[in-house]
Parts: sequence; C-alpha cells; structure tokens
Amino acid sequence: MKYSLEYIKEYLNILKPDEIKNLLLEISLQDLIENWNTLTPEESIHIFKSLNLEMKVELINSLTYKEQEMILSELNVENIKQLLNEMEPDDIVDFIQSVSHEVRKSVWENLSEEAKKETLFLLKFDEDDAAGLMTPRYIAIKPSITVAQALKFVRKGAEEIETVYYFYVLDQLKRLIGVVSLRDILAAKDEQIISGIMETDVISVHEDTDQEEVAKTLETYSLLAVPVVDKNNVLLGIVTFDDVIEVIHEEQTEDVYKMVAMGGDPLPYLESSVFDLVKRRIPWLTVLLIVGTITTNVLHHYEDIIIGAAFLFMFMPVITQTGGNAGSQSTTLIIRGLATEELYFKDIWKVLKKELMVGFIMGLGTGLVVFIRGILLPPGISVYSAFAISLSLCFVVLFSTTIGAIAPLVIHKTGHDPTVMSGPLMATVIDVFGLTIYFELAKFMLNI
Amino acid sequence: MKYSLEYIKEYLNILKPDEIKNLLLEISLQDLIENWNTLTPEESIHIFKSLNLEMKVELINSLTYKEQEMILSELNVENIKQLLNEMEPDDIVDFIQSVSHEVRKSVWENLSEEAKKETLFLLKFDEDDAAGLMTPRYIAIKPSITVAQALKFVRKGAEEIETVYYFYVLDQLKRLIGVVSLRDILAAKDEQIISGIMETDVISVHEDTDQEEVAKTLETYSLLAVPVVDKNNVLLGIVTFDDVIEVIHEEQTEDVYKMVAMGGDPLPYLESSVFDLVKRRIPWLTVLLIVGTITTNVLHHYEDIIIGAAFLFMFMPVITQTGGNAGSQSTTLIIRGLATEELYFKDIWKVLKKELMVGFIMGLGTGLVVFIRGILLPPGISVYSAFAISLSLCFVVLFSTTIGAIAPLVIHKTGHDPTVMSGPLMATVIDVFGLTIYFELAKFMLNI
Repeated sequence: MKYSLEYIKEYLNILKPDEIKNLLLEISLQDLIENWNTLTPEESIHIFKSLNLEMKVELINSLTYKEQEMILSELNVENIKQLLNEMEPDDIVDFIQSVSHEVRKSVWENLSEEAKKETLFLLKFDEDDAAGLMTPRYIAIKPSITVAQALKFVRKGAEEIETVYYFYVLDQLKRLIGVVSLRDILAAKDEQIISGIMETDVISVHEDTDQEEVAKTLETYSLLAVPVVDKNNVLLGIVTFDDVIEVIHEEQTEDVYKMVAMGGDPLPYLESSVFDLVKRRIPWLTVLLIVGTITTNVLHHYEDIIIGAAFLFMFMPVITQTGGNAGSQSTTLIIRGLATEELYFKDIWKVLKKELMVGFIMGLGTGLVVFIRGILLPPGISVYSAFAISLSLCFVVLFSTTIGAIAPLVIHKTGHDPTVMSGPLMATVIDVFGLTIYFELAKFMLNI
Repeated sequence: MKYSLEYIKEYLNILKPDEIKNLLLEISLQDLIENWNTLTPEESIHIFKSLNLEMKVELINSLTYKEQEMILSELNVENIKQLLNEMEPDDIVDFIQSVSHEVRKSVWENLSEEAKKETLFLLKFDEDDAAGLMTPRYIAIKPSITVAQALKFVRKGAEEIETVYYFYVLDQLKRLIGVVSLRDILAAKDEQIISGIMETDVISVHEDTDQEEVAKTLETYSLLAVPVVDKNNVLLGIVTFDDVIEVIHEEQTEDVYKMVAMGGDPLPYLESSVFDLVKRRIPWLTVLLIVGTITTNVLHHYEDIIIGAAFLFMFMPVITQTGGNAGSQSTTLIIRGLATEELYFKDIWKVLKKELMVGFIMGLGTGLVVFIRGILLPPGISVYSAFAISLSLCFVVLFSTTIGAIAPLVIHKTGHDPTVMSGPLMATVIDVFGLTIYFELAKFMLNI
C-alpha cells in the first residue's frame, strides 16, 4: 500500500521534516500529479522541498507553467541548479519559453555552460516542428567500430543519455548514414563491425517536418525515437516517443476545438484570461451568426404560411436539430475515416450509396417517432399535419446525412481541413436547406 | 529517393518477379500502408507476395481485417506459417478474433504449438482490459543473478522478444518483485547482483485495468512497457508503448463519437454495413428528437405572439444556433480541462466567474452583430425590434455559456462521463431554455 497525498497533507504540520520525507518516498507520482492542485501554495512548496530529486524532476515536468513558476520562485539557487541539472534539454527549453522574465533570468543564470549551449541551439527552432521537440542528447558512433566498442561506449554513458536504445551512425561530416538498435547490438557478436550490422535505410524526419507528421512516422514504424536531420542529412537530434504521445494529445485537443468552432493551440483553461477566451471564441461565433442569419431570409420567405399553419412553426426546432444531429454524425464518421486513412476521396461513391441508405432508414425511423408524438402528445395536431411533418423530417434527415458525409470528402480533396466545418458550420448549412425543404414540402402537401 | 507505390503499380505487369522484388525493397512502409487501398485485389496480392518477410509482417499488422483476410486467403500454407511465425502473440490474437471462420481455421492450424498455447492464454482476457493488450513475451530473471549473467541471457534471446528494454525480476512463484531497465543493467558493473540494483517499487497494472488507465500509467511514468499482474502479483505479460498509442487513438475516436451522440467502439466506415451504421446512430438520434420536442411545447405556449410579431419567428433559428454554439464551446473547454486533469469540481466557482464574464462579453458582441444585421439587411426590422432581439441574444449567449461550462463539471462530479452531453444534448437543452428566454423577454419589451 502507498500513502496518499490527501493523507500526507493532513499530517504536514505535525510530523518532523524527516518523517515527511519518508512518507513521501511511499507516494505514487500519479497521485502527486493528479492531486497537486488541491494543495495550497504553502503546502505545495513544503511538499516539493521534501521530495527526492528524481520525483522533483518528474513532478516539475508534469506541472503547468504557473505551478512550475511558483515553485521555482521559492527555491534557492542551489536547489534550482540541482533540478535543472537533472532536466532534459528539450524540457528546459519548453520551460524557459513559458515562465516570466524574472524566473527565466534566474533559470538561465543557473544553467551549466553545456546546458546553455544546448538550450540556445534548441531555441532556434519552431516549437511545432520536429526540431522543436527534439533532444540533442543521443548516442552517435562511427561506422568502423566493433559491437564490443559500442557496448563499452554506451555502458560508460548510459546514465546521461535520454534514449540509449538507438545508436546513430554518423560519417565525418556528422551526416546520418545508419542506425543500429541496442537490441541488434546485443544480438550481434562482439567482434562484428557496426557498418556490417547497421540499417542504412534510416527512417528520419526533417527539422521543419510538422509535429503531426513526426508522430505518424514514429507510429507507423513503431519506433522509440526518430532522428531529426537538416537538409544536408546532418543529425540534429532525436524526438522520443513520450514527446510524441504529448503531440498526439495536443492534436486531439485541437481537433475537438475545431469541432466546436474554435481554432489554435490547446488553451489551459484556468491560466487563460477572460480576454484570451473571448478572443478565441468570438470570431467563429460571429461568422456562424452572420452565415446563420440566412435562415432569417429563408423564414421571411415563408412568413405568410405560419399564420395559417402555426404547428409548422412549433415543430421547426425539432426538424433543424435532428437534421443537424444526423449530419454531424455523418461528418464525424467520415472525418475520422479520413484521419485514420481508412477513407479517401475515391471512396465517394461507396460513401454516397451507404449514406443514402442510412439516411433513408434513419429518416423513416425519426419520421415515425415525430408522427406518433405529433398525434398523441400535446399540443396535438391532425393526422395529416403530423404526416406532413414526419415526411419533411424524413427528407431533411436524408439530406443532412448525405451532405454531411459528402462535404468533408470534397473539402479534404481540395486540400483543406474538413474538421472546421464538422459541427457548427454544417449545422448552419443544414438549417438553411432543411428549413427550405420543410416549408416547401409542407406548402405542397397542405396546399398553402 | 524511394520508389512510390504508384510508380511500381504501373510496371507491375511489365517487370519480371525479381525486378519487382528489387523495386519493392526501395519502397517506404508508410507509402505502402497509405496507398494500399488504391490497389486492386490482384495487384495487392501480387505486391504482397513480392515483399520481403519483414515488410509483410509490418504491413499485415497495419491493414484492416478485410484486407488481411483477403491476402491470407490467397497465400499457401507455407507462406501463412512463415508470416504467423513472425507476428507477435497479441497481434495474432487480435487477428484471430476478427477474421472469418474459414480463415481462422487455417490460421489456427498453421500456428506453432507454442503460439497456440500463447494465443489460448491471451484469448481468455477482455480486449479492452490491460490483459487484452499484453504480449506474454518479456524477459524474466531471478533476483540472484549478476549483471553479466543477465546481459548474456538477453544477448542470446534478443531476437525473439518484443521488448528487451526491461528485465522483470520474479520470485519462485512468478510474482513480480522488481524491475531493471536495460539502461540500468548497462550502467551497472558486471559483478553486481540484480537484487541490488533493481527497482522494487514496480509500476504495474492489473489484468482487468481499463485500457485508458493503462495508457495513462505508461504516459505518467514515461515507460516503454507496463507489466500486467494478476491479483496475486503474478506477472502475466507486458503492454508496450505502441499498443498504448493505438489505445490513445481509439479513445480519441470514441470521445469524438460521443460529441456527436454516437456510442461504442470506433467504427471502420467502409467495413460497416448499413445496418451497423444505423444501429449505432439511430438510438441517440431518437432520444434527442424526443427530448427536443419539448421545444414544440415551448413554442405552442408562444404561438399567439407570432401572429403579432413575425420577425421573432424569423430570428429564432439564429438565436438557438448561436446559443448552442457558445454553449458547446464552453462545454468542450471544460471537458478537455477535466480530461487533461487541469480542472476539477473544486474549480467550479472560478469557472462560473470566468464564464459569466466571457458570456457577457460574447453576448454583447453577438448582440451588436445581430442588431446591425437586423436594421440594415433585408427583411429589415425596426430599431426597437432589433434591439429586443439583440438583447435576447445577449441573454441567451450568457445563459448558454454559463450552463455549458457548469453542467459538465457537475456531471463529472457525479461520476458520469460529461462527453455524452457535450454536443447535441446541450444544444437541445439550450434550445428549450433559450427559446423561453427569447420569447419572455420579447413579450416584456414589446408588450405583447
């Protein structure tokens, strides 16, 4: 059994420093990270100072920038130095780019000469590119050494290097000419020469490859790390799998944002100001509002009908909402299919055929529901009116389902990201066409 | 430069088998996977047979089950045996569970005795649990051996084992008592005893731990693999990082499905029948439809107003749509915050304060837009009417923004998943309340 942070918190002011340190040795990192923000500033600093160095480093890498800053500002120079010494260069760079000017200054002053050099090197690159994710600490060897020499080399330096699982083979100009996995080294005989066992068909990415592409490369080849090279194939650094998992989560958040008409990088909610939030949300909201007012003109056109058939007005939101829902289901299925590369534009006829069928069945189903509801529950409308409404809904669902599936395929084909139109924009388009279908059909059936 | 699949395809019937084999040595796996479904069945079998064994295995693991089946059914016994021999046990299990009865039979008959045993063992477990993801091939050592012995052991077996990067230390009852990373082994001296350098505080998961939790554990501790134990702490297998990346993508798809009111596992679009798709989509669509008809009753209540003020009717869809959009933005921000554990229920007051401010500003902004649009563009309404509508919109946006942020916090607090209500359900709720606010305020201002 482990102690929980909640338990330790209660005894924080009762126990002696050494006793707290011992309790904290028994706590899980996951508990610490998950419940860190239940601590008061005083408690968090007290607990942080009592952790062992390894836990300190792992914790600080998982905290938000504000929390990092708060802790850093309370530590003395010696402690900061110790901490920075244990952090990976790519984490230091992320950190330095995010903290306030004062903390940045004190961090910089406490970096070792080597870390300063590494940090300056990494700061050159865009943080959304391959180079922005990489660490410059990797194992580089010459092609002419033996397996035994390579093993000896890694055994001396194993502590220092983030990823010991690949040996990158460089020529005299530091160009990447091969790679050997630690597994291959272990499986080889001591006296074998690296150039004889290395893989020369190296999977690598360019310094300006987009981070999403880097993630895909690592996944496709199930690699633990991908080397990053410049245009001359000179090795700059490596991106490791844990950074890639972070990228996958980031891209996921961005996709979900786009589905609800927000753009840009993931927004840390509590740390964003009201202004940040409004700035992110209002542009699309306004665009959709303006596009959406086309419905005003559509309805203006049918104004007279309403006087004679008020029930059409009462069922209007249900029709547009159901159409919108059916459409966004289609859109989402197709967008996920495109994202996972299961679907391509060439499948458009298969998709069309399938969605016409699905739309037809769902149209009948929802039409039946609204028919029964229309005649049974208040306000209660005539059977023929209910039939007109349910037939309209049937057509609206068929239309929405089909257009919701085809539109993303076409948008994707033109090279644009179909996600932006997945949710709200689709709903607006469906509103406009759905209402037209609804009123035209009703006019026809009810002879108005 | 690499050859592309597109290029090779064109020469498929011109070149000799050996020439094709040589060309295919120069193709990238990524190209092959991405463009595989541009091939006709004949082409894909022709190309598959010409690949080298390593590529065959990597490709087959990346194909959909239908594509796998198609290829398997065309291979001879010898080729199937060879392929299965190279596949990892967990991949074989996934495969066997998905193919048709005939293919399953021929696969089973061609498995080695050892693979049959492993497969039967893995088939016992639920595929969404830790045990359903694991491979039984890991390195197990005794605590009493030396570093040199451990290294010798791994060097003999390195080719066979999926993950050579952790050594799991077991007692006589196969219970997991420690772990040593290959890095630690390399950094240690030859004569050191494993029990002296192993980490005894082993991060592990239980056989029935949910796959999402397994992913989180691996991420938190930046592990390459997590050991899976039973209730007696006996080691059953390990889950590796590439399986975890797949889980992350799967969970991502499921979350997006929930946002558009669909449940369940990711659906491979092209392989799903019309019936599969309808079954997945119609239940929620119907529920939302039925809940949505509450708006019918709301509008029934305001039926008389419409006769006197038809412009209220014309602006109705814009009001509900904008309210729905603002609400789903809030909901999404909060749900992402909860998912990334940046936000907790205890932050509810901070969230409320922030969203009230954001909602107020966005309400003013959108209100202003609709005001200008109302008086300037057709159909053209009076300034006072436009003012009434814009004030209503302002209140609706304020309401939606706030309720959209608070609802997921409360739902999450009760232990339910807030994602299901994020998109469509929220939109329906906002429709009902939004329309009430809209008409009540209009009634009040316009004295109807």
